[in-house]
Order: sequence, then C-alpha cells, then structure tokens
Amino acid sequence: MRAVDIIQKKRDGGVLSASEIEFLVSGAVSGKIPSYQVSAWLMAVFFRGMDAQETATLTQAMLNSGTRMELGSLPGPFVDKHSTGGVGDKTSLILAPVAAACGIYDPMMSGRSLGHTGGTLDKLDSIPGYRSLLSAKDFLDVLGRVGFAMTGQSADIVPADKLLYALRDVTATVESIPLITASILSKKAAEGAHALVLDVKCGSGAFMKDQEDAQALAQALVSTWAAMGKPMAALVTDMGEPLGAMVGNFLEVEESMDCLEGRWPADLHYLTRRLGAWMIRAGGKAQSIEEGESLFDAAISSGAALEKFLENVEAQGGDVDALQGMRGKYRAPRSKAFISPFSATIGALDAYKTAIASVRLGVGRAQAEDSVFPDVGIQILKKPGEEAKAGEELAILYARSDQALEEALAAMKGAFSPAGADFSPRKSESIVKKEIIAL
Amino acid sequence: MRAVDIIQKKRDGGVLSASEIEFLVSGAVSGKIPSYQVSAWLMAVFFRGMDAQETATLTQAMLNSGTRMELGSLPGPFVDKHSTGGVGDKTSLILAPVAAACGIYDPMMSGRSLGHTGGTLDKLDSIPGYRSLLSAKDFLDVLGRVGFAMTGQSADIVPADKLLYALRDVTATVESIPLITASILSKKAAEGAHALVLDVKCGSGAFMKDQEDAQALAQALVSTWAAMGKPMAALVTDMGEPLGAMVGNFLEVEESMDCLEGRWPADLHYLTRRLGAWMIRAGGKAQSIEEGESLFDAAISSGAALEKFLENVEAQGGDVDALQGMRGKYRAPRSKAFISPFSATIGALDAYKTAIASVRLGVGRAQAEDSVFPDVGIQILKKPGEEAKAGEELAILYARSDQALEEALAAMKGAFSPAGADFSPRKSESIVKKEIIAL
Repeated sequence: MRAVDIIQKKRDGGVLSASEIEFLVSGAVSGKIPSYQVSAWLMAVFFRGMDAQETATLTQAMLNSGTRMELGSLPGPFVDKHSTGGVGDKTSLILAPVAAACGIYDPMMSGRSLGHTGGTLDKLDSIPGYRSLLSAKDFLDVLGRVGFAMTGQSADIVPADKLLYALRDVTATVESIPLITASILSKKAAEGAHALVLDVKCGSGAFMKDQEDAQALAQALVSTWAAMGKPMAALVTDMGEPLGAMVGNFLEVEESMDCLEGRWPADLHYLTRRLGAWMIRAGGKAQSIEEGESLFDAAISSGAALEKFLENVEAQGGDVDALQGMRGKYRAPRSKAFISPFSATIGALDAYKTAIASVRLGVGRAQAEDSVFPDVGIQILKKPGEEAKAGEELAILYARSDQALEEALAAMKGAFSPAGADFSPRKSESIVKKEIIAL
Repeated sequence: MRAVDIIQKKRDGGVLSASEIEFLVSGAVSGKIPSYQVSAWLMAVFFRGMDAQETATLTQAMLNSGTRMELGSLPGPFVDKHSTGGVGDKTSLILAPVAAACGIYDPMMSGRSLGHTGGTLDKLDSIPGYRSLLSAKDFLDVLGRVGFAMTGQSADIVPADKLLYALRDVTATVESIPLITASILSKKAAEGAHALVLDVKCGSGAFMKDQEDAQALAQALVSTWAAMGKPMAALVTDMGEPLGAMVGNFLEVEESMDCLEGRWPADLHYLTRRLGAWMIRAGGKAQSIEEGESLFDAAISSGAALEKFLENVEAQGGDVDALQGMRGKYRAPRSKAFISPFSATIGALDAYKTAIASVRLGVGRAQAEDSVFPDVGIQILKKPGEEAKAGEELAILYARSDQALEEALAAMKGAFSPAGADFSPRKSESIVKKEIIAL
C-alpha cells in the first residue's frame, strides 16, 4: 500500500477502505508517512469529504493511536456532553453535576480556550487548589466517588489527533466536517463515554457561523457515532449572543454556582435544561425528554446537583471554603464600564465582539503561548430586549491592566446595537435550532 | 504574510497575487515554508486551478529560483519545441537540425524517460561519445556554431521545479494543468527559448489520455506564455499509436537519421513536418505555414538538416563514424518476434501497451533508479491498416535478457487488435487534432 495512491483515490472522490485509512493514520503517527503526504491527504479530504463509515473508521484509527480510559469497573451509564465552543458557555460546569445527581457517570475530558471561545479547563483552574489534570487512576477514582470527573487530555490520549490537528491548523484544513467529527469523537471515545450529547453552535460566536454548516456537522457527528454503535443527541444551538451574564473564568464558575442554586439567566436556563434532559434520557434515567426535564429540575431544586459540584471540587483538590468566599468578590483589580452610546431597546449583543474583548482581557488565548487569567472577564448588565439609555452602563469589564481594559473596550465597540423597527426579542426556546437524535 | 492564509485563499477559490505566489515559491525553495504547507497548497491548486496571470506569475517565480542561459551574444531567433511525452516520439531529434538548417537557434533542454514515455537525453546517450550534459559555456558554444544544442537540466536550472515536482509526485498533484504549465514553461524560459512549439499529446500513450484535457493544457500553455509576452504554437496531437516504426533509444536515433535522409514513416513525416513548419513560422523565417512546410522539405531534400545533425553529434563529442557504422546493426543480443494471433486487417496498435513493453526491455524507467539500455527496443513491422496473417511477425523485440524479453512480450499482449467492421485507416492528417496559435 502506498500513501500516494490513497491520496489520489480520495482526490478523485473515491471511498477509502478501512485498511487504507488505518495505514494512513498509523503511518502518520509512526512517521513512516511524511507530513507532506498527510497534509495533501487532509486537503483532498477537505474537498471530497468522507462518508459516515469512512469517518467512523478514521475516528477508530485515531482512537487506536493512543490509550483510553478503562471505566469497566464502574456500572455506568456513561454519558458526556460536548460543545463545539461558545462565548459565556458554562453549561458543562452545571450539566456534569446534574447528570451525576441523576445517577449518570460523566467522564469529562475538556480543552482549554481556543481562538475566541472559552475552555472548561481554564474555568476550573480559577478554583483555588483545583487539579484539572488528573492521572487515569485519580480520574477513575473521582468519577467513581462523585459521578463525574473533569480533566484535560494527557499526551497519550489520541496522539493522532494532536498530530493531525497541528497539521490542519497550518494547512487551512481545519474546517472539514469529517475531520472535525473524527477529532471530537476520537477523544470522546477515548475518555470512555458511551452516549453523547453534542451542542453544535452556530452564529457569530461559534466556529461555524452558518446554521446549515452546523447542521451538517451535527448530522455527521450523529451518523459517525451511530456507525461506531453508540447513541447521540446533537443539538444545533444559537451562539449569536453570549450565554448568560458572565464571560470569564472565575466569573463563569460563579455564575454556574448561582445556577446550581436556582438563580438562572433565562437563555442559559433553557439551553442547559434541554441539554441536561437529553443527557438523562440518553443515560436511560428518563423515558422521555419531558421526564428528563423534570429530573433536571429536581436535581437543581433539591440541591443534589450543587452538592455534586462541591463534592467534585473537593475530590479534585479544590478549596470549597475559599471558593465560596470568592463569590461576588473575586475580580481583577482594573475595571471599567462599557457605556451605552444610544437610548433604545437593545436589539443585539454580538457574541464574537464580546469574545474578542474577553480575549483582550485574558479570558482566553489569541495564541497557544498566551497566558489566561482567572479573575478577568465581562459581566453583562443588560441583554437584548432590555431598554438602554445613552450613558448607562451595559457591561463591566475586569482587567489586569489599563492597557488590556482599553483594548477590550475598543473591541466591544458596536457589540451592543439598538433594535430596528422589525425587532422582536429572542425567545429562549429559539436558542435550540434543531435536534438530531439517535438514541 | 503567512503561508496558511495563502493556502486558505486558494482553497476557497481566490486568485493569488504576485507577491503571494512569489512568497510561496521562494519560501518553498529556501525551506522557510515547510513541505507540508507546500503540498497542501499544491492540492488546493489541483482543485481550484489558477488563471493565466497566476500561472505566469508562478512560472516566473519558479524561473527566478535558479539561473538561466544567457543567449544574448547570439542573434536569434530562438525557437524550441517541446512534447508532453510520447511513445516512439523522436521528432525533437529531427526538428532541431531542421530548424538550425533554416537559420533558427534551438536551445534544447530535454529530460530523461519518465514513466512509460521516452526521453530525448536517453536517446542521445546511445550515440558513442555524445555528451548530453553540457556546461552553460559549452551549450552556448555548440548552439552558436551549429544552431542547436541538446542538454539535460543542470541542478541550478529552476530548482523550484525539482522541489515542487518531487512533492507533486508523492502527493497525487501531478495532473494539474497550471502546475504542469508552470513546470514546462519555467524550464523553457530558463533555457532561453523565445518562441515555442508545443506538442501536447493525447491518447493511450500520452499522460493525458483525453483530448479535452490535452486541449485545456494546450490553451493554458499558450495563454501563460502569452502572459509572459512570448509567442507559441501548441498542437494537440494523437498518441494513440506509437510514432513511426521504432521504439527504443538507439533505434530511434537510427530512425531519425533515416528521416533526415528522406525515408519517413507516413505518420512521423506528417507530424514532424507540421511541427517544423510552425517552428520556422514562429522564428520569422516563413510568412505562412505553407511556406514553412516548403522550407522544411528543402532542409531535408538538400541534406542541410542531416548535415546539421551530424555537426551537432561531432560538436557534442559524438563519434560520427561509429554512429554511421551502427545503423541497422546495433541491436541488443536477445530478440524475439511478436507473432500475430489473428488473420485480419490490423485495427489498432496500442501505444500504452507498446510503451510498457519497451519499459520492460529497458528503453525507459519504471522508477527513477532503473537503468536504461541504448540497444534495446521494439521495431514495429506492421502498423494499423495493414493486413496481418496469424503466425506472422508484427514486431521484433530486442532485449538484454530472456527474462526481459518474456516480460515485454507478455506486456505486448493485445497491443495489436484486429479491425472491426467500422474500421477505416487513420489518415496522417488526423494526427493533429487541434492547433492553438498565438504568434
């Protein structure tokens, strides 16, 4: 078998066999196939795509390149949730404890902030003492005791993804549905998840701006996971404006704890409840989505989910007392309000502009080597549909330096816009654009 | 400027600027842009193509990567002919002396055999003593004295082409019209040619089987050369059957000398005369193609072209007496006839099967490291349109070993096929499918 023939077959629109895909992935990882052949193949895949079976084979081959979590000593069910990346999206911090409170094991491996979107690991790192990188043994221990564990990916989890992603990043082959699908699902399979709930974002704050593209990705994710014999619910959701009121690291931990105590922004509540209900349904703990929603509500109102959250913080080395003491107070030293330039109903708050402002503050990274800060971020005071007066504060920005503050305020310019004549406020239900279910 | 942005622009169908193309080519040659980015870009070009201006810029950037022949001390005109590769195609060996006899300078840089097609250099190397790799100084000297010089490409001629071609070969990006165009034209510009006559082959023995593809390549060659301010005549010609009666290295030198003495196979005569007439017209020595054909005929009948051929052999170190003595005699030690399996009019002789048989004999190389032999090859005794009887010899194969002979005979199987009911013999004129002229 020769790599050049596999490249040519894909270039000409052919369907690759399992052995061809495995040859390519294992050769890429071992270095037997040079990176210039791998990147030419990636570009051919970009143009020609892959069907569900090819994508499943690619996912499996990538998975086989490394180790995977062995959860066999736990009874399950194992359900995880994953988002394609959003702004102010702290749903994972709420959903994992809710699922655990409902008797579901959530083995959650998360990433750091990437581009303009936030990262769950960076948020968790804002909790004093919290260890967001667990050994396999500790991960299994926390998962077994609490019902969920949160960790980053160790180097030996899906090394093929690290290699392929690094190549895709510099060869303009990131935006390929089968490659994105295999990247996400190989990691989710490696962490031991069986059922998955996927939040595929679209809109200005998402990687995929276009709803049709997001739907195509959601469909590919569902089909590929099904081809691997596993169930998934994929929701296409709107990321046109930030979720909730907080965009930051500790700020989002704080807002998550508020939600776990029952104090929710409407948009965040609707989306998290829907995702949670699907997790509960996917884990077999509810027979319908409505029953899932009831169980979600009960996990919140009973305090069981909050308790799971605090149990996890403690199990992963976090200081619960310190964390509680920081709520409402732990803010970076420089702050400045973003002032409304208009008197009108707020028509929109652009998620992308808000995200770029948050990156300027140090919530996320523009480049891989940038530092992130736990205490910086944006507190949104008014959301679309609310009335604003010129000169009124619409958001508070927290920064480590005046320079970052000014850069972030400049990036926020135009983020809020006045409503036009045809404006009608977004209903929370409209956040979920489409649900593709294969449970 | 970043390579990834240039890749993405081409991937998305954009037109690259001159500075972007120059950045990419110079970065590829200097090693500043890693090969995995270059190959991803090549694949994007494969899918998206390039317009005439982009292709001309690419050609110029590749040309700028190395040195070029300085022909300024000679009066010109400088006209060269190039073929995209055929089977039994010895027209260059005849055309260069004809052009020189008509007062045209032909600075000819040729390649070695590649894949199933023959190489002019390998043919010249069968002449005892002939030096087919000249220094720039010797090249200029022979060109000035004889009117044509034949050499291979030194390492410092278009290094960008060597690098890109090596990458294309292993990344399935060879068959791209703008990349083929820039590869051919950068080398022709480096050798100092002004006007070009291009023989773009189609049919089973050509790289481009399809006439439409060949026409598209011919058009791209003409447009790109025109965008560089230079004239070209591009002929799309049939390579469905071998040209003339000889396929080999010395065998083709021998047949060329026969032609220069006026003894021509009909197909070879028609094509060579047409190409020659366009060279003479492109060099300004004739006002019309008909006048060009008359001058071509005169160069042959007067013996002037043959004289130029022998002058060149001598000037490049060849032994003319030895060469003359080898004619009709210099054959590899093993030989065997290919026997007709049918009694019928011969309907077709497949150029590709003949070529593969010739490679088995050692006329050309299946891989770059294979040896070629001067004395092996195939002499075709009967061509399509002639009557064959079962058991009659249709061709003689010359080999260095019995094993090569058997392999070649096996490869020849089915090369000759009997005429069907609707058969009508090919007219020599139909070899030229299309002429695209921009003089």
